[in-house]
Formats: sequence, structure tokens, C-alpha cells
Amino acid sequence: MYQIRQNIATKEWVVIATSRARRAQEFTQTKERLSGDRPEWDAACPFCPGNEEPAPIEQMRLPAEGPWQVRVVLNKYPALLPEGPRVRHFAGIYRWMSGVGGHEVVIEAPRHNWCMALGTVEEVTQTLTAFQMRGLCLAQDPRIEQIIWFENHGLEAGTSLDHPHAQIVALPVVPYHIRCRAEEARRYFDDTGVCVYCQMVEEELASGERVIAANRDFVAFIPFAAFSPFHTWIVPRRHNPDFLAASAEELSALADILRNVLRRLYFGLRDPDYNYVIRSAPLRDVGREYMHWYATIIPHVTKAAGFEMGSGMFINPALPEESAAFLRAVEVG
Amino acid sequence: MYQIRQNIATKEWVVIATSRARRAQEFTQTKERLSGDRPEWDAACPFCPGNEEPAPIEQMRLPAEGPWQVRVVLNKYPALLPEGPRVRHFAGIYRWMSGVGGHEVVIEAPRHNWCMALGTVEEVTQTLTAFQMRGLCLAQDPRIEQIIWFENHGLEAGTSLDHPHAQIVALPVVPYHIRCRAEEARRYFDDTGVCVYCQMVEEELASGERVIAANRDFVAFIPFAAFSPFHTWIVPRRHNPDFLAASAEELSALADILRNVLRRLYFGLRDPDYNYVIRSAPLRDVGREYMHWYATIIPHVTKAAGFEMGSGMFINPALPEESAAFLRAVEVG
Repeated sequence: MYQIRQNIATKEWVVIATSRARRAQEFTQTKERLSGDRPEWDAACPFCPGNEEPAPIEQMRLPAEGPWQVRVVLNKYPALLPEGPRVRHFAGIYRWMSGVGGHEVVIEAPRHNWCMALGTVEEVTQTLTAFQMRGLCLAQDPRIEQIIWFENHGLEAGTSLDHPHAQIVALPVVPYHIRCRAEEARRYFDDTGVCVYCQMVEEELASGERVIAANRDFVAFIPFAAFSPFHTWIVPRRHNPDFLAASAEELSALADILRNVLRRLYFGLRDPDYNYVIRSAPLRDVGREYMHWYATIIPHVTKAAGFEMGSGMFINPALPEESAAFLRAVEVG
Repeated sequence: MYQIRQNIATKEWVVIATSRARRAQEFTQTKERLSGDRPEWDAACPFCPGNEEPAPIEQMRLPAEGPWQVRVVLNKYPALLPEGPRVRHFAGIYRWMSGVGGHEVVIEAPRHNWCMALGTVEEVTQTLTAFQMRGLCLAQDPRIEQIIWFENHGLEAGTSLDHPHAQIVALPVVPYHIRCRAEEARRYFDDTGVCVYCQMVEEELASGERVIAANRDFVAFIPFAAFSPFHTWIVPRRHNPDFLAASAEELSALADILRNVLRRLYFGLRDPDYNYVIRSAPLRDVGREYMHWYATIIPHVTKAAGFEMGSGMFINPALPEESAAFLRAVEVG
């Protein structure tokens, strides 16, 4: 199968070339120790209970009383500084600004060997609730334009610490890439009068062949132009540009479906390294009619290389319909 | 140092956060065996002399007579098929096209342990000449809209075979990412009347602090908003959108400076894995006044993770001026 597919929302093209590839199960990882095989507590881990940093670093914990389930702390090696003015500089043709913003770490569980695939829906909901609570706080800061929530799970996904943790970055600028996506969604809305993400959800539910799971509030599917094997979008059924405006019911439904998909990856492919990201509209320019927040999971079972850097396109050696069928068939209890 | 810098040509923002980081020499690789430590010939390598594929696969060789120095062959596991019509399909909201185009492998030297850093200028020139000759041929095909030339050097850069080889991909569509860059360059030209790449070369030469090397025809520098440590642009001084229109003198000057920079990486950082890419304008829409071809080198000394996927931005833990000073100081003979 040789096809070049376009993602209707992002306008990005992806080469689907399955003859280079392997059947879905051939992406199964060969790692010796899965995340759940780690010890439940590690004396040397800075995120394990008993090793907590002093209070000024901690931004919040859930529950507020008693033993914590989720803690949010300032990143000790931040990419952006929390204090200082947002100042633009111009010198010749160059432009830069002060590196101010937020960079926080969400410790997702006290247990060193926890991960979303192995946690309960309630535990995952706590993490998502912390995401939203800290996001609402950071969004109050007038310097902040964009918030990104993400996790790096495993070495290939760029993590440096085993203990389950996610990150929140609050940026003083809207990334170019996010501006482009907003622009394409706006054009689609102007041309058709509908949100392109709502449209995709409708088409995916109608065809069903790329759907992995669905619940009352969300649909999880492999996009038609998925850029890598098992690349998944989890899109809310309700039109809403802003993750910060997701309801409590939606957070718990997201926890349910995110855990569901991650369990399929964990048990179906032996705990592949992955990133997940929550993509939400820019804070001050939410494109109320055409933007639509969603979560995405990117398992690292192939490597981006020179072609991807030179073209911005990807080569996906797996057919999205087959990847979806494979994940649907995984028994996750 | 905490800054957010904008690349004036691409409009992309990069976080420069050097306190997370390490001094330039701390990016030195720890691999046991460098590329030059491999055997000169490997009986099991499909690209070593004596193991050549049958004639139909070979597209060209240099020199045409006698023992070959560079061979170009069809990729045995192509991402795109060389034969068949370019057909667009539409179904519901989805769009795709037949996966036709070119995917060729440039075997850069007969020696298994060769790499550009260790070759002669003449040898590197032969590879670049083969790039251009095959490009001119592929560009005759009316189905082709864009050509990408690249090398994946080392495992982290996505290679699967040790023998030194580059790749040429000829696409039947212009990638979205390349359209965006062309659009930004056009806007800059419309606003200022000059090519933004020409402007960057001028500014970099004037300041000098990010320049690694320069010769009659090219300037190699770390961009002001480099997205990763030692990320390098090699830009021709002559305004020209199209690599296929580079002169023979330019190809040999590019060989000289590409080899120069790669030697600094090889000896200064112990053969880091890298991608290099030649970025040239779309074939049928060359933006004669505002596009400008160039080569870029992306060493893999850090990992992109969830933040990069979610924002399209990068966090560079090295100050571009320091990376450039480090590379300038490497003795390369």
C-alpha cells in the first residue's frame, strides 16, 4: 500500500508505505523491564514519598489533606523562569524575548512503578484535574499566551526520570505551529461553517474503521493521516476550544478513555515509550467556533529522520486502519 | 540565560535555556566505536564493492568507467513507487493520492568506514554532483513537485545500515511545512524587497559570533534561533532558490564547507549522529526572488519530546554563540 494522505485539520501530508513494514504486532517492544516491573518505591527517587522537596517548590497536591495522590512542583531545571517581565527585544533583523513563563512537573502518583495504563480511572482523573487546576492558575498570568500539557514516558520519549510524571509549560508567546493550525481550522470554518475537528469525529464514528474506543464524551481514533504507527487522537464530542473549560464529567471520561488506549498499548505492544499531549487553543485568542481541544498519544515505535526534518512530512510504515484494528482487539479487561 | 528567540526566516520560536545545560564539550558522545573505526570492507554489507545489486537497480555511478566512487540505486524498500499515475482521491472529508515518486539511495563511497568528515573534498563533491544529477533527472518527471536530499548518520539519526549513504526522495506534492516557509519568505520579500536568507547571511557575516566557517561561495553558521545544539545552516552567498541550479564551483565549495563543519563535529564531539538535509524550493514554483536553497546539519545530541510535539517549538539547552565558538575552536587540519 503506497498512499500519501492529507490530515484535513492540519493540512499536513503523510506517506503511508506499508510494504516497508511489518504487521502491527511487529512493533511490539523488546524491553526487559516494563514500567510496572519497577519497585514501588525507590529511595534515590526525588519524586517518591519521603523525598519531597521543601514547600516553596510545591504548587499543589491532591488530595489537599492526608497522603498525596498527585503533586505539582516547580521544575528544578526549568525551560522558562517564573519571575520577571515579558520584554521583547529587537536587534538588526533578530527578535527575541525574555524567557519567562511556567514550567511545572506533575508527579502523577506516589508509586514509582505507576503509569496511566496501570492506574485506576480515579487516579488518572486526579492527574487531569491537577492539569486543569494548575492551567487555570497559570492562565491568570497576563504574560502567558499558551499552555502545553505533556508526558514523556520512557527513554525514547525523552524522559530522564522513571517516576511517573507529566509537565506543564506556560509560554509567553503563541507557537508558530499552533498559529498555523488555528489558521487552517479558521479557513475550514469559513469555507464550510463547521469545526473541522467536529467533522472528523463525525466521519470517524460513521466509518468506525479507525476508532479504538469511545465513551459518552470522547472518541479515540487513529487519524486517517496518522504520522506514525498507533498515533492516536482523543477528541471530545462537545465542541470546545479550551481544555480549561472541560467539565468535571469530561475530565473523568477523558481519564477513562486515555487509560483505555494506554492499556491497549501497554499490553498489546509491551509498554512502548510514548508522549501524550493536550492541545488546547491559545489563551487570548480561542477561536471559539473553529478550534477544538484534544489529547494525542504518540508511541515511539519508529524514528523520525532526515526526510522528516527536510520535508516536515512523515513516513508511516503502518496502515492506520490496521493499527486501529490491532489496538481494538487487545484484551484490556 | 533564558530567552525565546525567533527565526526570522521560518517565524518559529525556540526556547534557549542554558541553565538546564552543560557546556558545549559536555555534548561529547560516549560511543565506543566511531564511524572511522569500522572495517573498510564488510562481506555482509549490501553496499560494499562486490555485493552490488543487479543493473536495473543502479541509476548512475561516478566515475562512469573504472571502479566506482559513488553509486545511486533505487531504494529496495521505497516510501514511494517509481511507476504509476499521480491520482488524487476524495472520499467524504478525506483526501489522498497515489504514493508515486522517487526514493533513491546514494552510496557515498565504496569504503564501509567512510564518512564525509573523513573523506576528501573531491569525494564529497562527487556525492553532491550525484545529488544534483539525479535531481535534474527526477525533476523531468511531471509528477514530481519537490525533492529532498538527506543523510541519516548513525542510529539516533534513524539509519539502519552502517555503510555511508544518503537518500533522495522525490515527492508528488509540496509538503505543508515547505509551503509555510515559502509563504513567510514571500511576506518578508513583499515587506522589505530583499530575500530573508540573503539578509541573514549578511547579518551573520557582520556579527561573526555565530559563524563556524566561510568560503568563497558559502557561509556556515549556527542560526540565531537554532533549535538544538550545533544545529547548523550552510547558505550559499549567491541568491538562488534552486539546488539544481548550483554551479559546479558551488558544489565543490559546498563539499569543502560541509566537510569542514562535519569534521568539527566528528573530532570535537566524537562523531555524533546527525542528519543533513538540502532544502531547495518546490520545483514548479520556485519563488525566484524570495526562496534560497541551503543545507542544514542537525546533530542528535538532545532528544525532542512531548513539548516539541505539542508546541512545534524546541528547547535548546545550548547558547548558539557558545556552540559556534566551540566548533570554531576545533582543530580540523
